[in-house]
Amino acid sequence: MIRTGIMGYGNLGRGIECAIRQNPDMELKAVFTRRDPQTVKILTEGVPIYSANDAIKYKDDIDVLILCGGSATDLPKQTMEYAKSFNVVDSFDTHAAIPQHFEQVDQAAGTSGHIAVISVGWDPGMFSLNRLYANAILPVGSDYTFWGKGVSQGHSDAIRRVAGVADGKQYTIPSEKALEAVRNGENPQLSIREKHTRECFVVPKEGADLDKIAEEIKTMPNYFSDYDTTVHFITQAELEKNHSGIPHGGFVIRSGKTGWNQENSHVIEYSLKLDSNPEFTASVIVAYARAACRMHAEGMTGCKTVFDIAPAYLSPLSNEELRRHLL
Amino acid sequence: MIRTGIMGYGNLGRGIECAIRQNPDMELKAVFTRRDPQTVKILTEGVPIYSANDAIKYKDDIDVLILCGGSATDLPKQTMEYAKSFNVVDSFDTHAAIPQHFEQVDQAAGTSGHIAVISVGWDPGMFSLNRLYANAILPVGSDYTFWGKGVSQGHSDAIRRVAGVADGKQYTIPSEKALEAVRNGENPQLSIREKHTRECFVVPKEGADLDKIAEEIKTMPNYFSDYDTTVHFITQAELEKNHSGIPHGGFVIRSGKTGWNQENSHVIEYSLKLDSNPEFTASVIVAYARAACRMHAEGMTGCKTVFDIAPAYLSPLSNEELRRHLL
Repeated sequence: MIRTGIMGYGNLGRGIECAIRQNPDMELKAVFTRRDPQTVKILTEGVPIYSANDAIKYKDDIDVLILCGGSATDLPKQTMEYAKSFNVVDSFDTHAAIPQHFEQVDQAAGTSGHIAVISVGWDPGMFSLNRLYANAILPVGSDYTFWGKGVSQGHSDAIRRVAGVADGKQYTIPSEKALEAVRNGENPQLSIREKHTRECFVVPKEGADLDKIAEEIKTMPNYFSDYDTTVHFITQAELEKNHSGIPHGGFVIRSGKTGWNQENSHVIEYSLKLDSNPEFTASVIVAYARAACRMHAEGMTGCKTVFDIAPAYLSPLSNEELRRHLL
Repeated sequence: MIRTGIMGYGNLGRGIECAIRQNPDMELKAVFTRRDPQTVKILTEGVPIYSANDAIKYKDDIDVLILCGGSATDLPKQTMEYAKSFNVVDSFDTHAAIPQHFEQVDQAAGTSGHIAVISVGWDPGMFSLNRLYANAILPVGSDYTFWGKGVSQGHSDAIRRVAGVADGKQYTIPSEKALEAVRNGENPQLSIREKHTRECFVVPKEGADLDKIAEEIKTMPNYFSDYDTTVHFITQAELEKNHSGIPHGGFVIRSGKTGWNQENSHVIEYSLKLDSNPEFTASVIVAYARAACRMHAEGMTGCKTVFDIAPAYLSPLSNEELRRHLL
């Protein structure tokens, strides 16, 4: 049994808890929180909740610690810190800062003799893997990534900061027309506006100027001004009834050429359609937590990404079973 | 530069030659053939063609030998034999015989200190990888593989053996209705007939009984009787004009559940749309040939499959570049 710990119990932490339950070779040993442990209720019966400050005391009871903090401020400190005492997995997703994060974590994990897997999830994560495989197979070609249909937390937050808005949710939607052109191997050059549209469901405050809200959203730089944006005004009840989920997904497509004169076209497409973004991310992380433990058991150490981990490590099946049933 | 050799120069061998040309870190060093080398013409200028019998003489000039023989009789002997002197890659695709092939090749490559990568291509190969990843991520779920639209060589051969048939080509076509049900997360139980249809383009011999040919094809056990099969009669000229390509492709889909009460659905889909089945297979093989050389350079030995090889080994980019650009 792989003994796991969860550091941080929000949407992602809860997703990890659910994913562990689906994997018979894994057990949840403890949840760590920065809140008062007395105030945190988890789903699994009989599992202790400890203060994050005490985590280090339990280092011999936990084979892998799953870090569920945010990329902005939590993980840049936590992953490096906990890699000194645990095998760890994080979902660090600030793409531009990954090289620096890797170096810091690699040093900590290398020195302590642990495995630290960073930037696990679907983007970065499964989407990155598919970009790598497709690029290695088709060196002559073009990459396309589309996101959605799904809820963007950042854009939803931006809507809620607009004056007169009580609540709101934003969906990122890939353009069907652009997707079709890519799938047809047309290798289109796509502007930001041509790739995605944005759809907003907004609950206005009483007496708010709806036209003004819509205008302010649609012209918001960085978030909306480069896109075709639709704004719908709805009630709080409607928002809760129809938009309470956290769906997401997307498409990674590589279209390339082969042949002596590049006369043949090929399209490799990977897509995800997810009811729950955090639960799917958690499911990917738990598979890599298994890999971290196995690699550590084989004597490997240091920081790893999805690129560095042979696929067989993710599966509970033996190599013989994998060859027999999945190859 | 990775110095490659090609063993066997048919459709696959020619595809390997084209793929090597697209990879600046690889060069074609020699082609080996069982035919009289004088009778074989290749595309690359200045590359020698040798008799397969002499291959062993060139073992110090070749970093990886790519085996392009068939799975029925060639590879069961060749891979084991050449792994005694070379790093090798094959596309052994008799699924049921993979475990035995692995054992034999592993012993040969282990003893000689080489890397042998077997069963590389898209199925087995990229489809297998996607089955593994998706199963590890979503342990509660169902797997679906659809093939096509594409040419099945085996079924085309079967058509051509029917009395009164001069020539013919068969396309395997996935059912759109079945695909949609799977994509919608309906977890359907699909019969063979519901998953794929078969479409045949047949050139009859002069004076042949067309109804009899169609009947014989449609009722042929194993090949056609379990499917809804359409037979079109065309001229040899039409066959050559419209059906000379070797397209193929397919879909690997896993649909699964997450959440404490499995309340959320997810669909992971990987698909290929290929103008040339052998050229795409060759492109996958060449990426794994790079991996074989790098793993060998790091001191690894023995038989490997796509499951055992960390993705980063496939790419010509350094690990730093991969993290910066593709993660």
